Amino acid sequence: MIDLRSDTVTLPSDEMREAARDADVGDDVYDDDPTVNELEARAAELVGMEAAVFVPSGTMGNQIAARVHADPGQEALVDVEAHVYKWEVGGFAQLSGLQVRAFDAGERGAPTPEQVREHAREESLHVAGTGLVCLENTHNARGGVAIPKADIDAAAETAHELGMPVHLDGARLFNACIALDEDPAAMVEHVDTVMFCLSKGLGAPVGSILAGSEAFVEQAVRVRKQFGGGMRQAGLIAAPGLVALDNVERLDDDHENARILADGLDDIEGLSVPTPDTNIVVVDSEAAGVTAQEFVELCDDVGVLGGPFGEYHTRFTTNLNVSRAEVKEAVELVAKAVQSQ
Amino acid sequence: MIDLRSDTVTLPSDEMREAARDADVGDDVYDDDPTVNELEARAAELVGMEAAVFVPSGTMGNQIAARVHADPGQEALVDVEAHVYKWEVGGFAQLSGLQVRAFDAGERGAPTPEQVREHAREESLHVAGTGLVCLENTHNARGGVAIPKADIDAAAETAHELGMPVHLDGARLFNACIALDEDPAAMVEHVDTVMFCLSKGLGAPVGSILAGSEAFVEQAVRVRKQFGGGMRQAGLIAAPGLVALDNVERLDDDHENARILADGLDDIEGLSVPTPDTNIVVVDSEAAGVTAQEFVELCDDVGVLGGPFGEYHTRFTTNLNVSRAEVKEAVELVAKAVQSQ
Amino acid sequence: MIDLRSDTVTLPSDEMREAARDADVGDDVYDDDPTVNELEARAAELVGMEAAVFVPSGTMGNQIAARVHADPGQEALVDVEAHVYKWEVGGFAQLSGLQVRAFDAGERGAPTPEQVREHAREESLHVAGTGLVCLENTHNARGGVAIPKADIDAAAETAHELGMPVHLDGARLFNACIALDEDPAAMVEHVDTVMFCLSKGLGAPVGSILAGSEAFVEQAVRVRKQFGGGMRQAGLIAAPGLVALDNVERLDDDHENARILADGLDDIEGLSVPTPDTNIVVVDSEAAGVTAQEFVELCDDVGVLGGPFGEYHTRFTTNLNVSRAEVKEAVELVAKAVQSQ
Amino acid sequence: MIDLRSDTVTLPSDEMREAARDADVGDDVYDDDPTVNELEARAAELVGMEAAVFVPSGTMGNQIAARVHADPGQEALVDVEAHVYKWEVGGFAQLSGLQVRAFDAGERGAPTPEQVREHAREESLHVAGTGLVCLENTHNARGGVAIPKADIDAAAETAHELGMPVHLDGARLFNACIALDEDPAAMVEHVDTVMFCLSKGLGAPVGSILAGSEAFVEQAVRVRKQFGGGMRQAGLIAAPGLVALDNVERLDDDHENARILADGLDDIEGLSVPTPDTNIVVVDSEAAGVTAQEFVELCDDVGVLGGPFGEYHTRFTTNLNVSRAEVKEAVELVAKAVQSQ
Repeated sequence: MIDLRSDTVTLPSDEMREAARDADVGDDVYDDDPTVNELEARAAELVGMEAAVFVPSGTMGNQIAARVHADPGQEALVDVEAHVYKWEVGGFAQLSGLQVRAFDAGERGAPTPEQVREHAREESLHVAGTGLVCLENTHNARGGVAIPKADIDAAAETAHELGMPVHLDGARLFNACIALDEDPAAMVEHVDTVMFCLSKGLGAPVGSILAGSEAFVEQAVRVRKQFGGGMRQAGLIAAPGLVALDNVERLDDDHENARILADGLDDIEGLSVPTPDTNIVVVDSEAAGVTAQEFVELCDDVGVLGGPFGEYHTRFTTNLNVSRAEVKEAVELVAKAVQSQ
Repeated sequence: MIDLRSDTVTLPSDEMREAARDADVGDDVYDDDPTVNELEARAAELVGMEAAVFVPSGTMGNQIAARVHADPGQEALVDVEAHVYKWEVGGFAQLSGLQVRAFDAGERGAPTPEQVREHAREESLHVAGTGLVCLENTHNARGGVAIPKADIDAAAETAHELGMPVHLDGARLFNACIALDEDPAAMVEHVDTVMFCLSKGLGAPVGSILAGSEAFVEQAVRVRKQFGGGMRQAGLIAAPGLVALDNVERLDDDHENARILADGLDDIEGLSVPTPDTNIVVVDSEAAGVTAQEFVELCDDVGVLGGPFGEYHTRFTTNLNVSRAEVKEAVELVAKAVQSQ
Repeated sequence: MIDLRSDTVTLPSDEMREAARDADVGDDVYDDDPTVNELEARAAELVGMEAAVFVPSGTMGNQIAARVHADPGQEALVDVEAHVYKWEVGGFAQLSGLQVRAFDAGERGAPTPEQVREHAREESLHVAGTGLVCLENTHNARGGVAIPKADIDAAAETAHELGMPVHLDGARLFNACIALDEDPAAMVEHVDTVMFCLSKGLGAPVGSILAGSEAFVEQAVRVRKQFGGGMRQAGLIAAPGLVALDNVERLDDDHENARILADGLDDIEGLSVPTPDTNIVVVDSEAAGVTAQEFVELCDDVGVLGGPFGEYHTRFTTNLNVSRAEVKEAVELVAKAVQSQ
Repeated sequence: MIDLRSDTVTLPSDEMREAARDADVGDDVYDDDPTVNELEARAAELVGMEAAVFVPSGTMGNQIAARVHADPGQEALVDVEAHVYKWEVGGFAQLSGLQVRAFDAGERGAPTPEQVREHAREESLHVAGTGLVCLENTHNARGGVAIPKADIDAAAETAHELGMPVHLDGARLFNACIALDEDPAAMVEHVDTVMFCLSKGLGAPVGSILAGSEAFVEQAVRVRKQFGGGMRQAGLIAAPGLVALDNVERLDDDHENARILADGLDDIEGLSVPTPDTNIVVVDSEAAGVTAQEFVELCDDVGVLGGPFGEYHTRFTTNLNVSRAEVKEAVELVAKAVQSQ
């Protein structure tokens, strides 16, 4: 099976497994785990923030950020295709009492300053004021779009002019940075907080990082405890996370694989596949008269796993478990499958 | 001053004041207020529902409905211009833990069955399923649009096919019914619950009605208590509410006045005013190079009160406190004001 | 029927009804209702606070106070018999995300400084810090206990030393003040906010007051809107509320009636009735082998209405609808009923 | 340093570390992790429940249980010393809108049927009905008390008679079972759901189990995702968790060590130490005129770590990182420290 369902399926490397076995650990709830502390320090430095906290998932990182930044009865401003809105089980409302104001930020999912201004709302007797602007980079549901620093900066600066904090859902932050040849710290220079995943393309088995100011992280640690994300000898999973931080450069391979995959699939009659920015390839099979559900099954039958991503759109995600050769093989397998249909 | 800011400014008639004075009252929290009971019974009958509960405001009626219909962590499907989303201080999220999924239901704000299907979401591990569809008639922010029964029915039936309850924000339900010559009970035949206001065009000083099945209303009474809407000798305000129910037919005057106002204003150079469905007149002053804020001030200076309704749009609402003659006078005053600018 | 179920059953006087009919009203959501404004100003002055807001019920006043004072994830410190904990449908948790820390403040329900210190909790990684101390005077469930200013002051000052705001549930504040011959403003001198009811002993049909600093009331008005307590021509019920403010002195009659009722009932074999502080009389019928449920029914049969208040305790509440003569009659009727059992 | 602060500080064994390194993993959010699946299956079987879900912490397990069992606006019935009430940052209110009704269940923290009946509340217009009874075994804050199956059964059966679900916070469930020689499945036979920790005395680095019916666990998995507890290649930490399940028998060593520690400390003049049921030793230093804070520092200075547990009470927790010899050494060190004071 060539598993392209998601980069979340990446298996930890031997090096990560060894690191887990050998990790120097302590009770992180007592702040006693040296490996977690090292990971948090390195992670904070990497994105140029004062502090960071290790959390069990990207979803928890985003949800904690919303809880700390905004007050119940405010609004969070997001692109309509944002992960926090589509795929986090309504957490902003349920966990933080936040109303989501989602708008269509365009094909690339990066709100312009004008869009931020248009949809930001000033608190009044009737109106829930905007308490948070949430950006996403790369933008998953928009097709792994890598949003340039200039766009992030512009949206964030506009939000700040309006007095609103900015959180970046950077589940795949390093994919964006590698694709755009941008320093991570520069990329997040103007946002207040950022979450990025150690799992996904970096390959760690478990965990994400939420970074921001010291005052923010102090509160985030408390909310993490309330949400049940306080873990004990977490160094055992922080250690592979440290190894994962060395995997940033290799995301370029995933991106190159994604381009090869996209080009190959686009050559297949009936499929239309734009060149991807990063590691997410979105296949449009409408011209072939094949729904996403059918296309996923058809690929599945020949050993290529993807996921439905709309009525006629299917997502394939290259990742460190899938080699260049396998990507090429996947193209051939899918080509045959489509032709023999 | 000719006050066209809103039909919420309507002053109670002498008959209503007399009714308040003479009301037969009791402690409604003990269900002992005969006037409240009579009002709730008449209101329920009027809209063909099993039961009804008297609430201090339309906002409370809508918020109670959301709380009773849906579970925290679900979504409420609404038009992006819905009152519950724009002007109820984020209550769905804060009071009920509901994520709002707002979409553009088009110029008239009535979702088509296709739109309901498109935006309804099935619960999954990642997805907050749709727990409520909320419609609005007349649709305030869309310009007092009167949505035909057929459209309400179609949206509601689609929602029901998908297993989702439907609440109608009918703050101005009777305006829609009068404009369309539709029986109120027929209008709400296919929704599960409806809220309508006794204040606004009907002229009562305070209060709204939330109607639905007996089981629904039993729960609504409890949520009303929790929200702090349980009132004691509420018959004193229910009595004018009963008088208000006799005011339904007279809404036609407001509509006729609105048409006269719209036609008159539309004749003024630089103003563009579509013919209103009901009592809400929306003036576009962009061609005159006048912002809504400026236009409202300009009108204010000549004694005509309206309210900003977007960057270049201003809302005037005809109501029972404003006579035909005053409406015509308002047109003349505004015309002079615009010309002398 | 001699209705002693609660002082909430009091019917508005003719003067109140006339006041309602003749009220000068406007749209209070636009802050345009002169009668509401007058009531809020007079109410604020009466309790020596900067500002006040009119709310549809005492419950809403208390719930708004909690929402404004404290943050979700904090604790509210209350006596275990407090109204906000027992009879407000779990609103602190549901509406404000507050954990209630209830403790037994003793027979009179007034926490000592030591109790406040003992149960106050400092925020930590594991601990929800105390965000509000809520007192109650008179204390309803403790039997209409009038808590002296010195006790309120002591508890409030301790809370303030610990950095915690204090709200007083003064649903029957004036009963306490009259019983103790204390000025209302002096009574609440050291609390941050106070809610008192215009209904109950003062006899208004609907409504309560929430008073505090200007900054607090500004936020309270907004939360009131979100909870659905914003009303339109509310002057119609504010006007009887103004009349009610003149009823403060007459609460002494209720208290005298309560003492007569208590003495009379205490003389009945099998009943034990302590002398009440104010207008709430609690009858213990355990020695007679009669449960509260049975006792309430037995009284009901002879035309005296009360309410169960525990397994063997029944509450009677004197109020302005019940005259001295009726109270004496009630004693006789109950005496006969108990004897003929 | 002899670290007796908590059994949460236990370091994973070599076997656990090897198990982590060699774990067969997959993406658990896709339900693809064979090690997690094996752990969940074994854990469910161990406690005789239909299904189980692996969560990052005991707190998350308890909070998910509350969210699934009860509705917002209900009450959770707990002992006043329960972990869910004291040390979970007010999560029941904040995450689930539940009002906690805490009562003093006595020195051992096990509510009697009478207490359950007394504090259970039937839903009414004013009253938040009881939606959950939460028990704890062993009871941490009561001193590691092992509550017999009969007491758990009696409380649970009473709750069920009243129609209320029962969750057991079994963070140290196996300590209770070992101390009482009770089968875990028998112990939880009458509760609906149980949470137990793989960390703490069993020694796993991270993670807890929440078990119940299949329908319950299906919902729990969804709430876990919302709370941010969905992890990817979680097999890496589930593998040590599987090893931890073999550590149940060895808890007896901790208990024996605790008895030795308690006896030794009790012999020191000024200290009073009851014989512990399990691995939690609570030292009362009031007779020595030493506060817990002082006592903890005094022990700290000689290399024995404990934690304050009240004004004059200090907790020591034996655990697999501390040998019999170290326990005896700890006694000697503390004895000298106290004497030389």
